[in-house]
Amino acid sequence: MTIMTGAEYLERINKLGSEVWIAGEKVTGDISEHPAFKGVMKSQAELYDMQHKKSFIERLTFADDKNNQKVGISYLIPKTRADLEKRRNMIQTWARYTAGLMGRSPDYMNTALAAFASSVHLLRNQPNCFPEHLTKFYEYAISNDLSFTHTFINPQNNRSLMSFADEDTTNARVVKRIEEGLVIKGAKLLATQGGITDEIIVFSAPGIQDQSHAFAFSIPSNTEGVKFVCRKSLIADHSRYNSPLSSRFEEMDTVVIFDNVLVPWDRVFFYDNIKIANEFYKNGNFVPFALHQIVSRQVIKTEFILGVAKLIVDTININEYQHVQSKVSEIIIGLESGKALLLASELQAEKDDRGIMIPNRTPLYVAVNQFQETYPRFIEIVQLLGASGMINLPDEKQFASPIGDVLDHYLQGFEIKGKERVQLFQLAFDLCMSSFGSRQTLYERFFFGDPVRLSQMIYQTYDMEPSISFVKEMLNKKLT
Amino acid sequence: MTIMTGAEYLERINKLGSEVWIAGEKVTGDISEHPAFKGVMKSQAELYDMQHKKSFIERLTFADDKNNQKVGISYLIPKTRADLEKRRNMIQTWARYTAGLMGRSPDYMNTALAAFASSVHLLRNQPNCFPEHLTKFYEYAISNDLSFTHTFINPQNNRSLMSFADEDTTNARVVKRIEEGLVIKGAKLLATQGGITDEIIVFSAPGIQDQSHAFAFSIPSNTEGVKFVCRKSLIADHSRYNSPLSSRFEEMDTVVIFDNVLVPWDRVFFYDNIKIANEFYKNGNFVPFALHQIVSRQVIKTEFILGVAKLIVDTININEYQHVQSKVSEIIIGLESGKALLLASELQAEKDDRGIMIPNRTPLYVAVNQFQETYPRFIEIVQLLGASGMINLPDEKQFASPIGDVLDHYLQGFEIKGKERVQLFQLAFDLCMSSFGSRQTLYERFFFGDPVRLSQMIYQTYDMEPSISFVKEMLNKKLT
Amino acid sequence: MTIMTGAEYLERINKLGSEVWIAGEKVTGDISEHPAFKGVMKSQAELYDMQHKKSFIERLTFADDKNNQKVGISYLIPKTRADLEKRRNMIQTWARYTAGLMGRSPDYMNTALAAFASSVHLLRNQPNCFPEHLTKFYEYAISNDLSFTHTFINPQNNRSLMSFADEDTTNARVVKRIEEGLVIKGAKLLATQGGITDEIIVFSAPGIQDQSHAFAFSIPSNTEGVKFVCRKSLIADHSRYNSPLSSRFEEMDTVVIFDNVLVPWDRVFFYDNIKIANEFYKNGNFVPFALHQIVSRQVIKTEFILGVAKLIVDTININEYQHVQSKVSEIIIGLESGKALLLASELQAEKDDRGIMIPNRTPLYVAVNQFQETYPRFIEIVQLLGASGMINLPDEKQFASPIGDVLDHYLQGFEIKGKERVQLFQLAFDLCMSSFGSRQTLYERFFFGDPVRLSQMIYQTYDMEPSISFVKEMLNKKLT
Amino acid sequence: MTIMTGAEYLERINKLGSEVWIAGEKVTGDISEHPAFKGVMKSQAELYDMQHKKSFIERLTFADDKNNQKVGISYLIPKTRADLEKRRNMIQTWARYTAGLMGRSPDYMNTALAAFASSVHLLRNQPNCFPEHLTKFYEYAISNDLSFTHTFINPQNNRSLMSFADEDTTNARVVKRIEEGLVIKGAKLLATQGGITDEIIVFSAPGIQDQSHAFAFSIPSNTEGVKFVCRKSLIADHSRYNSPLSSRFEEMDTVVIFDNVLVPWDRVFFYDNIKIANEFYKNGNFVPFALHQIVSRQVIKTEFILGVAKLIVDTININEYQHVQSKVSEIIIGLESGKALLLASELQAEKDDRGIMIPNRTPLYVAVNQFQETYPRFIEIVQLLGASGMINLPDEKQFASPIGDVLDHYLQGFEIKGKERVQLFQLAFDLCMSSFGSRQTLYERFFFGDPVRLSQMIYQTYDMEPSISFVKEMLNKKLT
Repeated sequence: MTIMTGAEYLERINKLGSEVWIAGEKVTGDISEHPAFKGVMKSQAELYDMQHKKSFIERLTFADDKNNQKVGISYLIPKTRADLEKRRNMIQTWARYTAGLMGRSPDYMNTALAAFASSVHLLRNQPNCFPEHLTKFYEYAISNDLSFTHTFINPQNNRSLMSFADEDTTNARVVKRIEEGLVIKGAKLLATQGGITDEIIVFSAPGIQDQSHAFAFSIPSNTEGVKFVCRKSLIADHSRYNSPLSSRFEEMDTVVIFDNVLVPWDRVFFYDNIKIANEFYKNGNFVPFALHQIVSRQVIKTEFILGVAKLIVDTININEYQHVQSKVSEIIIGLESGKALLLASELQAEKDDRGIMIPNRTPLYVAVNQFQETYPRFIEIVQLLGASGMINLPDEKQFASPIGDVLDHYLQGFEIKGKERVQLFQLAFDLCMSSFGSRQTLYERFFFGDPVRLSQMIYQTYDMEPSISFVKEMLNKKLT
Repeated sequence: MTIMTGAEYLERINKLGSEVWIAGEKVTGDISEHPAFKGVMKSQAELYDMQHKKSFIERLTFADDKNNQKVGISYLIPKTRADLEKRRNMIQTWARYTAGLMGRSPDYMNTALAAFASSVHLLRNQPNCFPEHLTKFYEYAISNDLSFTHTFINPQNNRSLMSFADEDTTNARVVKRIEEGLVIKGAKLLATQGGITDEIIVFSAPGIQDQSHAFAFSIPSNTEGVKFVCRKSLIADHSRYNSPLSSRFEEMDTVVIFDNVLVPWDRVFFYDNIKIANEFYKNGNFVPFALHQIVSRQVIKTEFILGVAKLIVDTININEYQHVQSKVSEIIIGLESGKALLLASELQAEKDDRGIMIPNRTPLYVAVNQFQETYPRFIEIVQLLGASGMINLPDEKQFASPIGDVLDHYLQGFEIKGKERVQLFQLAFDLCMSSFGSRQTLYERFFFGDPVRLSQMIYQTYDMEPSISFVKEMLNKKLT
Repeated sequence: MTIMTGAEYLERINKLGSEVWIAGEKVTGDISEHPAFKGVMKSQAELYDMQHKKSFIERLTFADDKNNQKVGISYLIPKTRADLEKRRNMIQTWARYTAGLMGRSPDYMNTALAAFASSVHLLRNQPNCFPEHLTKFYEYAISNDLSFTHTFINPQNNRSLMSFADEDTTNARVVKRIEEGLVIKGAKLLATQGGITDEIIVFSAPGIQDQSHAFAFSIPSNTEGVKFVCRKSLIADHSRYNSPLSSRFEEMDTVVIFDNVLVPWDRVFFYDNIKIANEFYKNGNFVPFALHQIVSRQVIKTEFILGVAKLIVDTININEYQHVQSKVSEIIIGLESGKALLLASELQAEKDDRGIMIPNRTPLYVAVNQFQETYPRFIEIVQLLGASGMINLPDEKQFASPIGDVLDHYLQGFEIKGKERVQLFQLAFDLCMSSFGSRQTLYERFFFGDPVRLSQMIYQTYDMEPSISFVKEMLNKKLT
Repeated sequence: MTIMTGAEYLERINKLGSEVWIAGEKVTGDISEHPAFKGVMKSQAELYDMQHKKSFIERLTFADDKNNQKVGISYLIPKTRADLEKRRNMIQTWARYTAGLMGRSPDYMNTALAAFASSVHLLRNQPNCFPEHLTKFYEYAISNDLSFTHTFINPQNNRSLMSFADEDTTNARVVKRIEEGLVIKGAKLLATQGGITDEIIVFSAPGIQDQSHAFAFSIPSNTEGVKFVCRKSLIADHSRYNSPLSSRFEEMDTVVIFDNVLVPWDRVFFYDNIKIANEFYKNGNFVPFALHQIVSRQVIKTEFILGVAKLIVDTININEYQHVQSKVSEIIIGLESGKALLLASELQAEKDDRGIMIPNRTPLYVAVNQFQETYPRFIEIVQLLGASGMINLPDEKQFASPIGDVLDHYLQGFEIKGKERVQLFQLAFDLCMSSFGSRQTLYERFFFGDPVRLSQMIYQTYDMEPSISFVKEMLNKKLT
């Protein structure tokens, strides 16, 4: 096989019939027809279809001549700066289709898997590690253009510093190691798109204390005993006019419950090895590769927000106010900073011993940590610009009703009719105020970790020696 | 008649049968049974019922011996500091029932009407003014415990400084003055609770340029030609578990269209008088009375948010983190500042020439302007504390399903079972992240006006002479 | 004796001849003539003289009929709300004379001593405690209108959480308990006005681990072995025109070194008692009384800054800009909040078992913690308003020189000549940008403790139970 | 001639004998020996000497083979991206010597002159323009390695929007056009280093209304009628220990008064041409070249502040606190953003029609506008970290006195003696709290213009069309 089409994706997921619970019921029938999933699965399918379109094929795929197949660039392990640029273009091409609103578009997890596969040397000759399983799985994923979810955060039951004793109560862990593989029991808090992907990759959260929690593996989503339990759906409305974003991009989050799930050995990458669990995260390529994907996407999302803000300004004709200009400038500043940091990470990328080109993680950490603050501020700015216009939004049916023409007149903006103006504000509402939009804000607040911890991480990993020497030199200059 | 019961309120509104458009249809049948209105109307009814409950009657009503009736304190025109305190207690008693989430609980408009009635002297002997209509209407409202909506903001079509020429395109204005009264045509942008109150009070926005826009009147909501056009409903779910706040407090906003509406003369307070329109707003008691109501409510809302924040902290056991403590402290600081400013406005209240006790508006302006910034920050803080727990919220049915027990176990918090923990987070979500919650945030951002203009208003009205003299004295002290 | 005059203060301090080191030399001769001290001592003297002036005597003193003497209200232990108001008026009267720039005007330490004396019951019947020494000393201080400095912070050598082992290296501690009294050795980091007061009060910093550091006493500043080591002076210039504030209010800070200092028993309030050291701070009246003094002063300082800001705005005629108005409004908001919180603390004051009226500490903590953030912001605002005008400030001599007239012309402001305009900006510079002004900013940042810890303190001491119950009630309302 | 030595610089300036007024007196004798100037002139001389040092010569100069001379890279008009990198290295090499504290190190004005010279085509064939004078002057400056100050801001007398009528009262303008040249009368507000450079370049502020204010020229600093009037000096102390920065880098600002100054025609670049005055600023290369110099310097300054912050953290051992880490991270984030934006401006540089490589101004505007906010925050962070340690700073003489050893002991930090610890804090004080340091903060707040206007400029010049199209496309996607 080779790169997937949208239709293939839908068919494959429907066929899997994973155990997905939503609103008190187990999904039966085609999940792609279920109201909570049909929008996002359609969007996902469209992303896959883009890989086949003439206008995108160059930006999204490359020819794997050895295996005589087309491969998504999202799977590409970069060897040159040009490869990083290719990866960025691929990520941003897809992100442009979703306005950066799908944090789990296929490139995210494909990038993660490529990162894992390119870090396979860390597993060599280590106890309970199977680097060859990982390599083989990566090749298998490429050949089948597999879709993934992943999960690693444990349930939030006790966040105290001294809470390790509770770990076994709820967290997914190895309860048996038998001939056929590992047996897993417990829960993981969050798998976005859980139940609508081919596979689920499961690995340890950082900082574990007990070796039964130290593992990494991938299994098909329909593996027996795996249950995806959905939160409430955040789609207010399936109308593209009323809910232009949530009707298409609501990814759904799930709690994943492992009810004595058997993971066959050939899918285990490592287990019972705390040291490797920590090192694989810390020294492997997951962090720089994932950050590069995230920042590439966030830049596109910022461009989108800038457009929304500016259109609102134009539509109600508030261009002339100084504070309006300064607010929009804040978004521009965020956009330009993000773009510059992304470029810097590529420009300062370095090859590792195995010839893999690693983006510099410092500017990326900085970009992600800044976005955790600036994204909510951008959302606030759109609210402040849109003001009361963000609220009084009749839905599509009102415009189609007997009073539609009157509304079209009375809700007009500056050089724009009411229905069209309201459409823009519906979009802004869906981005900034709907349950869907609020989840987006929360996600960006915590992307890649708690903002407080992320800023500590920057402190702890940054090389401040040159700055210290600089000051010491200034202090010690011969006093004259 | 005397103070209303909830049942009377419901019956009266149903009977009115005002013209309300929602989702493309005109409401027919009892509006109190319509899914978009039944929650808020029930809450409203419960507020009215409180006026009759032994435990509240003292805090909510007083005896009008002259007319031998009980009257809601919300209608009370204060003559003493004690009256202000009574008013505050009444407002906060009702606000406590709604967690401060109903900006249009009956006390808001009753207070506004009392403010108008207490400013009636401004209309005396002025052209096109009818002070006696206002006084009579106030008494009529008291005797019937009328419920109100109001509207004054014009459509948002062009906010440029130079846009007055467009006024006549969309804004409600007097198009005819005939024997029976005024004829009104055009729209007003926003009437919260439009269509579910007895009456609608309509008055000019500040800064009008054309006298046909300068008026104030009240008419029954079912007056011919008045159309209330609803925005989309923000109730995600009628389950009290899933949507504990929006299922009860979603007030609905409407565009109000006046299709050649006849306002009988005895309901006209003034018209065709720009000077009075501006002065009635600027020099009347609406500003200080309304601000006193608003700040009283916002204090209760802040207390509620503080409780939500602290319960989240306890539930996931993050008490020990410094940044967690500092974040919760921000809410405490906001709460204590609000309470202190409210007290200061009462302590510095002064009697006007007619013996009416006017709360000092400066501390109230300050409180409202601060809340425009702090409220969104409080909401942000709850999100930052709740983190991923704010997202992964299975609904009530999931807990009632075959996997309910498992969920109850895996989603447990610190000394709390899963279902109960999720209930708290559902409440937090509804407050901070649901469409309903986002509207709350937007409303508080703009309560009593654009925050930028409100801060300018503070600058323009504050007496800085004492500070200037202080500095001049310091500058001019004899140099020694 | 009774209330002191300025001349008596100067004479007494000169006579003491305490050991004060500055710029490498021990002060000899009259310290009130030393360039580093003459300004502040003159100001201090003027404050004392105010106690005798007809126009101030009522606001600053009361008649102690029992002992037939006039006493400064700063020593008054309040028994009623009116006493608190008296105290506030006294504090603000003095603060007005210094624009709130002298953190150690006499009322600060007099208040502290009154607070200690009113907490004397905590020492009763406790080991190593001498409540009667404290009471007697308080009366002695009153009768002689003594002036004080105090010191309690230890040197900053190691702020790690685990640094207690180092305590004995540098911190002042009891090294001997002999018949005549305690012998103290070591240093305390900071005594503002050290060396220019009659006495120095010394007590433990909170959180001590070793009983030899747990003590409280007062000794004359010239006690043998006590050395006051000055920092560099921050007076740029003695000209009242060039440095209108620092030339008068530069209080000087000192490190205090105790070189085997003997503290006679009758001056020891307690020693070797960790429990009492902590409780005296935590449960005594020092915190509420000192906070009340601080906030009263900070309110005056804010009024002063508001005046400076507004005069700058007028002088360069930038009133019309929206962002200018909003910036000045920030100061107004800070001022009104501070005033309201201060009032609230008095309104919510409560009598303790001994009949002492204790201001509510919560609003005061809030006010002080807010000021730690708003004061630097106010300073920033003045800089942003003054802009380049804050920099290009010719001194007094330039205006007196042959080019003076030309300067007076070219540096004119809006309806103001150059010399007068520059005088205003010199004041603003001294407040916001001189070394003196920067120390003011730093002081306010840390007044009453590190802002991070202060916000934690608010969290830890606030009663959040009512808020929690409020939310629980909302959660548990019968679901209908 | 060729690149200058420090000695030549000093000699040349002394010989000029420009008219400089300070503290009421005209400077006579060698200005390089005057206490207010000797520090900065020595530093300036050292910068010139670096151009001759083997270790720096490559980074600071290039060979101008045509004219057989070495030329400072600061004069280089870039033709390639490599030239931009060369320029950056040159700027940062010099900036490193001054910790970025000299805003007017020679590269600033040399860059400005190179920018002017490279924009000479804008003057061709325009009325009252002399492009050939500019070209010739640029070559003359190169050959003599001239030093410059410049001035363009008018006095601050009235900043109202409607104040143009006042222009002629104070602002420098052409009062006569005679055979020998222009005659200039009036003042300019600010020439940093005025009086200690060979030449002064004078040009119009943007937005002029009267053609007599529209000019550009350069004249020797000692031209008859030119008076440099100094502000008060901000050097507290000439000791390198007590004032490590101000003793070396206090640049002095001057008001420049033109008392009927004759500017010979060959030094006039243009005059009486408002259109060119505006276009030369807006379309010439001054903005991108100057911004590139400024941001290059600010990056170095940020590195320095980071070092100071980290050394304070180490010295008092507060590494372990989360809020400390987060604060230092803010500086890192600022540093990395600045570096990335600088790189981006070079990467996105484009050649103009004349083959000159113009750095992209957008990322540079963003960097400068951000620095206006982040620099004061960095200064605040250093204050918050240093806390009380920033205040209690005995001077050098205290350590040399009989109590020096005791101080050295008691003021010790973590693994550092008192004298050395205090030296670090003196540096931090001079950077963040001295009058000199406060001027630095004010300068960075306003570098390249008022921050409010700069943010408006970003809004007004940014191309938002792509963002708008992006959103429109999303809105208009076929609704399905």
